[in-house]
Amino acid sequence: MAEPLSRNRISDVMAAVRKRIASRALAPGDRLPSIRRFATTAGVSPSTVVEAYDRLAAEGLIRAQRGSGFYVAGAGLPPLKLAEAETPKARAVDPFWVSRQSLDTDAAVLKPGCGWLPADWMPDAALRRAIRGLARGDSDLLSYYGSTQGSLALRRLLLGRLAEEGIEAGRDHLMLTSTGTQALDLICRFLLRPGDKVLIDDPCYFNFQALLKAHQVEVFGVPYTPFGPDVASFEAVLATERPRLYITNSAIHNPTGATLSPQTAYRVLNAAANSEMTIVEDDIFADFEPEPSTRLAALDGLDRVIRIGSFSKTLSASARCGYIAARPDWIEGLVDLQIATNFGGPSPMSSEIIAQMLAGGGYRKHMEELRRKLVRARRETADRLARLGVEPWLTPRGGFYLWCRLPEGLDSGDVAQAAVAEGIVLAPGNVFSVSQTAARFMRFNVAHMLEPRVYQVLGEALKRAAA
Amino acid sequence: MAEPLSRNRISDVMAAVRKRIASRALAPGDRLPSIRRFATTAGVSPSTVVEAYDRLAAEGLIRAQRGSGFYVAGAGLPPLKLAEAETPKARAVDPFWVSRQSLDTDAAVLKPGCGWLPADWMPDAALRRAIRGLARGDSDLLSYYGSTQGSLALRRLLLGRLAEEGIEAGRDHLMLTSTGTQALDLICRFLLRPGDKVLIDDPCYFNFQALLKAHQVEVFGVPYTPFGPDVASFEAVLATERPRLYITNSAIHNPTGATLSPQTAYRVLNAAANSEMTIVEDDIFADFEPEPSTRLAALDGLDRVIRIGSFSKTLSASARCGYIAARPDWIEGLVDLQIATNFGGPSPMSSEIIAQMLAGGGYRKHMEELRRKLVRARRETADRLARLGVEPWLTPRGGFYLWCRLPEGLDSGDVAQAAVAEGIVLAPGNVFSVSQTAARFMRFNVAHMLEPRVYQVLGEALKRAAA
Repeated sequence: MAEPLSRNRISDVMAAVRKRIASRALAPGDRLPSIRRFATTAGVSPSTVVEAYDRLAAEGLIRAQRGSGFYVAGAGLPPLKLAEAETPKARAVDPFWVSRQSLDTDAAVLKPGCGWLPADWMPDAALRRAIRGLARGDSDLLSYYGSTQGSLALRRLLLGRLAEEGIEAGRDHLMLTSTGTQALDLICRFLLRPGDKVLIDDPCYFNFQALLKAHQVEVFGVPYTPFGPDVASFEAVLATERPRLYITNSAIHNPTGATLSPQTAYRVLNAAANSEMTIVEDDIFADFEPEPSTRLAALDGLDRVIRIGSFSKTLSASARCGYIAARPDWIEGLVDLQIATNFGGPSPMSSEIIAQMLAGGGYRKHMEELRRKLVRARRETADRLARLGVEPWLTPRGGFYLWCRLPEGLDSGDVAQAAVAEGIVLAPGNVFSVSQTAARFMRFNVAHMLEPRVYQVLGEALKRAAA
Repeated sequence: MAEPLSRNRISDVMAAVRKRIASRALAPGDRLPSIRRFATTAGVSPSTVVEAYDRLAAEGLIRAQRGSGFYVAGAGLPPLKLAEAETPKARAVDPFWVSRQSLDTDAAVLKPGCGWLPADWMPDAALRRAIRGLARGDSDLLSYYGSTQGSLALRRLLLGRLAEEGIEAGRDHLMLTSTGTQALDLICRFLLRPGDKVLIDDPCYFNFQALLKAHQVEVFGVPYTPFGPDVASFEAVLATERPRLYITNSAIHNPTGATLSPQTAYRVLNAAANSEMTIVEDDIFADFEPEPSTRLAALDGLDRVIRIGSFSKTLSASARCGYIAARPDWIEGLVDLQIATNFGGPSPMSSEIIAQMLAGGGYRKHMEELRRKLVRARRETADRLARLGVEPWLTPRGGFYLWCRLPEGLDSGDVAQAAVAEGIVLAPGNVFSVSQTAARFMRFNVAHMLEPRVYQVLGEALKRAAA
């Protein structure tokens, strides 16, 4: 028999796998290298690896999972751990650290690292008025699940806003979601599979990375410039990696505050079209712009661009309501997915509150006042940070973030760890950076930077870190 | 060279793949058979298949996806389609059909197929009182995202209810979720991987199947008896398939209205322990029981049983709030997952409304009244259905469903299709059945069966279908 399978080679492969399991390099539930990869690495034929894996599976040491490969046997696959540490206290300064510190620490803690405005900057009176209106509202609205695409009143208002941007969309282009994050999550579930490639800005909103980790996709970063993603890098990564999806903020980018320029928008959209890539444009900070800038969804007309947004930054994060505007056939599939995984979208009560607040002329006034206050807060914060040697990377046109460079030699992660002990939550640069190249950067929320104590503690942390 | 790779065999494999793509048996984005499976089926060596796939990939006809296999090239993988049909009108009577018909048709449509009580059965006055209280509430509550595990007030109330069941749980055993469905979805994301095996009751709540389809797992059904899952089948499927998860309702099972017996509970839990399987106990109908029955979570003490629930059936579906009670280390991971995918849980405003309604003595009175009304409605509905030859499979101890057998020769899917044309949404048996063996069954919501028109149209549909 000319069969080249050598019993020795098979034994060698089996022994190598056994050793890795014994040393816990491969733990119960871990996936073994693919047959092809193992064969290439070990310099043996794929059939040798197949035979070795099959024998180990017969022994019960590993198990084949249909359509997925071989896994180390044990108590099933381990649960999906997104954060590295085992306990909240031992957590590293990762995207979850910022979220948990911001969300779970009490009101005495100062939060220049958080992603929302202080309650007294929000439209409290209008919100209470809308809630009182709800208490007199229709019984069906208060009791029932609501329709699968969400409140028609709110969708009509959103369609009007899209039309103002020049996006001609109908009712079947739009659905409401529990949150802006859930909007993105549904899209990822709809379009991506584990192992797919996804492109994000570097830096970008930290929770994009956390979300993509949950989807087990491969993430690539494109350097962000004051005019949008660096176009040469963008085109290069599309050519070599052909990512399935690009996720970005066009208006008042988080964390930098930069704005996409028309030329960059045009080239980004062209490159995406050539590469058959879908773009998600998260427009959550749009209403903080002094005047509208270029939007990918408007240039493209909701063909390959999906628009998402929410009302958490402008009206109320407690209401929990987001939306997706996209091609009708995609909305159809996304609605099914939302039924299957959430049995519908946001609370109809919340949607009604948001619709009431958006419908009146009060919303425009509220946003004008917010923008005015934020101009002042950005200037004051920049001035006071400058005295500590902390410089903004860019002067944003709007919004509440300043993306700042710390004095040389400082690591913003260390500064954040020190500050949290003093009751201040900061947002260090590397939680925003796929390439982990933003250790000297820090994102400051200017609306939470008005208390002198922040600068004191920051100054001390900077001094200590420099010492 | 003794290399047994034959150029002819490689060409044969390449030709076979090309043919399947040309005939659209394999469409762009479809996964090719695994190397091992193709090799076994075609009677060639795995290395032959590897070589053929590699050559086709070099030609650009297929592409390798790291850790996942080979796919037909084209515009990326196709979006995840959960429903079969392309348009809502062309939809088959599947789980989505019932959800969409129930949720999206207007108030003039009668809905004995729906899964909720009529608005005028719900605690409208208490709900409005709670909303008015909210309008006078704390500004932080109205504006902020809230803590990652959700409202402490509501969690305290839930811990009290768990303690009444004999479940000693602390704060770190509990988290709030956007909905009961989202609770289950998070658990599936946490514990399952595509291709895993999951066990559900046959019949069971139809959306479990829709949800599991979104998770791309392999679903097995266990026949449901009046005392819970059929224990012999349950033990057999655990022994042969070793599913990772079992999802069930212990109290007032949906759709049958059956209740888990203590003996069945004990054997189910033992079998699960021997097989290292996790159980999700969805307790959403619990408060409709006249007195508490055996619960898996209580027997087990939240070790391998995860408890989920919501308030949509008892207080308001519009509020949108669910919960998970589980091991603290799992809650920790599930909270991370909820941050990543939803940036937190339910609306803090909704949670506050639910907490207010649960806290007072009014809740117990409301449920007593509901149970009284439902006893009458179940009896009346059963009497009137009997005149049409429609018989309940079981007389439930509580709840609002009657799981009924239609007269011989009828297909409940056909009846439902005919009824919807007459403005009546029904829930035909097979949408609840993994094995598709419930074509003669129909689930009736007795609270929506008080109008004579339902029986008229049902009678006509039955006549027509019998003709």
